[in-house]
Amino acid sequence: MGDARRYHQLSSPFPMKRGGALRGARVAYETWGELDADRANAILILTGLSPSAHAASNAEDPSHGWWEDMIGPGRAFDTDRFHVICVNSLGSDKGSTCPASNDPATGAPYRLDFPELALEDVANAAYEAVTGMGIVRLACLVGCSMGGMSALAYMLLHPKSVRTHISVDTAPQAQPFAIAIRSLQREAIRLDPHWNNGQYDDASYPEHGMSIARKLGVITYRSAMEWNGRFARIRLEPDQREENEPFGFEFQVESYLEGHARRFNRTFDPNSYLYLSRASDWFDIGEYGEGDVLKGLARIHVEQALVIGVSTDILFPLEQQETIATGLRASGADVDFVALDSPQGHDAFLVDIENYSRAIGGFLATLNP
Amino acid sequence: MGDARRYHQLSSPFPMKRGGALRGARVAYETWGELDADRANAILILTGLSPSAHAASNAEDPSHGWWEDMIGPGRAFDTDRFHVICVNSLGSDKGSTCPASNDPATGAPYRLDFPELALEDVANAAYEAVTGMGIVRLACLVGCSMGGMSALAYMLLHPKSVRTHISVDTAPQAQPFAIAIRSLQREAIRLDPHWNNGQYDDASYPEHGMSIARKLGVITYRSAMEWNGRFARIRLEPDQREENEPFGFEFQVESYLEGHARRFNRTFDPNSYLYLSRASDWFDIGEYGEGDVLKGLARIHVEQALVIGVSTDILFPLEQQETIATGLRASGADVDFVALDSPQGHDAFLVDIENYSRAIGGFLATLNP
Repeated sequence: MGDARRYHQLSSPFPMKRGGALRGARVAYETWGELDADRANAILILTGLSPSAHAASNAEDPSHGWWEDMIGPGRAFDTDRFHVICVNSLGSDKGSTCPASNDPATGAPYRLDFPELALEDVANAAYEAVTGMGIVRLACLVGCSMGGMSALAYMLLHPKSVRTHISVDTAPQAQPFAIAIRSLQREAIRLDPHWNNGQYDDASYPEHGMSIARKLGVITYRSAMEWNGRFARIRLEPDQREENEPFGFEFQVESYLEGHARRFNRTFDPNSYLYLSRASDWFDIGEYGEGDVLKGLARIHVEQALVIGVSTDILFPLEQQETIATGLRASGADVDFVALDSPQGHDAFLVDIENYSRAIGGFLATLNP
Repeated sequence: MGDARRYHQLSSPFPMKRGGALRGARVAYETWGELDADRANAILILTGLSPSAHAASNAEDPSHGWWEDMIGPGRAFDTDRFHVICVNSLGSDKGSTCPASNDPATGAPYRLDFPELALEDVANAAYEAVTGMGIVRLACLVGCSMGGMSALAYMLLHPKSVRTHISVDTAPQAQPFAIAIRSLQREAIRLDPHWNNGQYDDASYPEHGMSIARKLGVITYRSAMEWNGRFARIRLEPDQREENEPFGFEFQVESYLEGHARRFNRTFDPNSYLYLSRASDWFDIGEYGEGDVLKGLARIHVEQALVIGVSTDILFPLEQQETIATGLRASGADVDFVALDSPQGHDAFLVDIENYSRAIGGFLATLNP
């Protein structure tokens, strides 16, 4: 399999919001389409918790990306018009500097000596990558899920760096239900004896904790409504059952979760998971508005915005998207708010490509790059 | 602390739905109010997953019960009029025969040799206790949460044994979202090395698994709306934080969950948890209606029913209560359906005493015992 990643060296030291600094750090990114002569047609996509920068296939890496059907010639992110960039979050192990990277001060992996990570750091690292490409102003900044929170930080910390914004299934601050879910995911990892305070290796790996964390993630990324139609009470075939496993899986929904956990395990570093998950809990745009989310949002200035949410999302409920739309509108932006009824819950943006394409493609078609 | 439990010896052998039988088994129960001369004023309450038969204080046990404010003279379950009985579920460790009980065949605890448990077995054991008290027909059968499913089984398996029914925050079948949540709770226990295939003891106890299971339970028993108002993003005071605990708790909602887990751990047997949790997943009134839930419900005949649900319940969503109401109505019952907007989610019946009292007290006031 090819590798389309490029790397941007961050300023060194790269100061972190909560203290400390990284030295010699970098972020990985991929691009699609051509940057025009005045560098005004760039779209940056900031990702959710675990995706890599490989949002779509390209010449160097023909494997499917995590938003494959959204990016390409004639697609919602039309690469005949736009230069699309996706950055792997700082702290993620998909090419960017992260807890599994070597600390230049010691020559050994950071693990839990990685400095505390905030989404503001993720935003600042992405901003450095964009400006490093000579792009002064993005045509559009797109943030999905956790990436939507990073995008708010980006726009707030770097005024005038973004013309328009697309906010996808995200939130202006972490609310207690989402904090509870993420805290429990982290606890499942921390309680796994193989986590060992971050000192695991391939032979002794917190597979059980990661499995529970991922399953809890998938449960909250989808919706009960979707599963009623998809799984109902369908049992596994006898040959799919685990023999002699007390309380082993019996329903299709259980093996669906197990499949998700198996595909996830060992593809995402547990310490990266912990750092990025906690960063999501910490995020609160209200910090920039004297504790008031709307005041924080009002400090963000873009020309136009599209805010999309889904009525079945229990992790980032629709009311939070409405708040983003209201806040950006109050600061003078021309805001489209799209509330979808996709049954797939928070993950709708990865699954209901038809509706997301229509909303995002329609919004981008109105821009004159 | 006193003990108000009485015990009913089940028939021996007591056949189990999925095969096997218990010998010398019993269920614990408590009562409030007087049984009238013709034994026609009895109300039976079937409980959720973990509560004991101690639904309210009484002379022998003055400690608060789990539905304390609902039961007593002048309360919704008015003990001046009714004889209220609460049975501890078969399989639960609060006095009834359960996996921690001694198997008379071996003299050692059953543990995982306890036969597979279904809610139909829970219902049959409760029915034996009631008939053992000389009660031919209950004035009212009440089921909360899991107990609501047991109650449906009770009425279907024992025609003419119930005059009226109160269904509280329950479901006619387990749907995949609830199965997924419960399966993950069981998995957290099973993956705890101290569970040891059910062979734990006080010194080596699956505390981590039980803690994760309980927290996941509490997350799904309450609602995001309630927590937005109650916890928002309030931090713990520095002296409440765990020093030097990487990724330790920081938000009030996290310590709220931790408090719940600590109070629960070692008060409920992990194997009981597994057996009753799986029984909930298995339950499907549709089994008695050629796969059709409404046909199954139509086989239940009561004079009157009250069906209550809460719009914020994500575990037993309101649509499932509507289905119960529709099905019982189709079989000729006079059904009141009450949809509450209590913010407390599934647990509203334990918290929003005002609204549940009004609905239940109002319904029972119309009965002529």
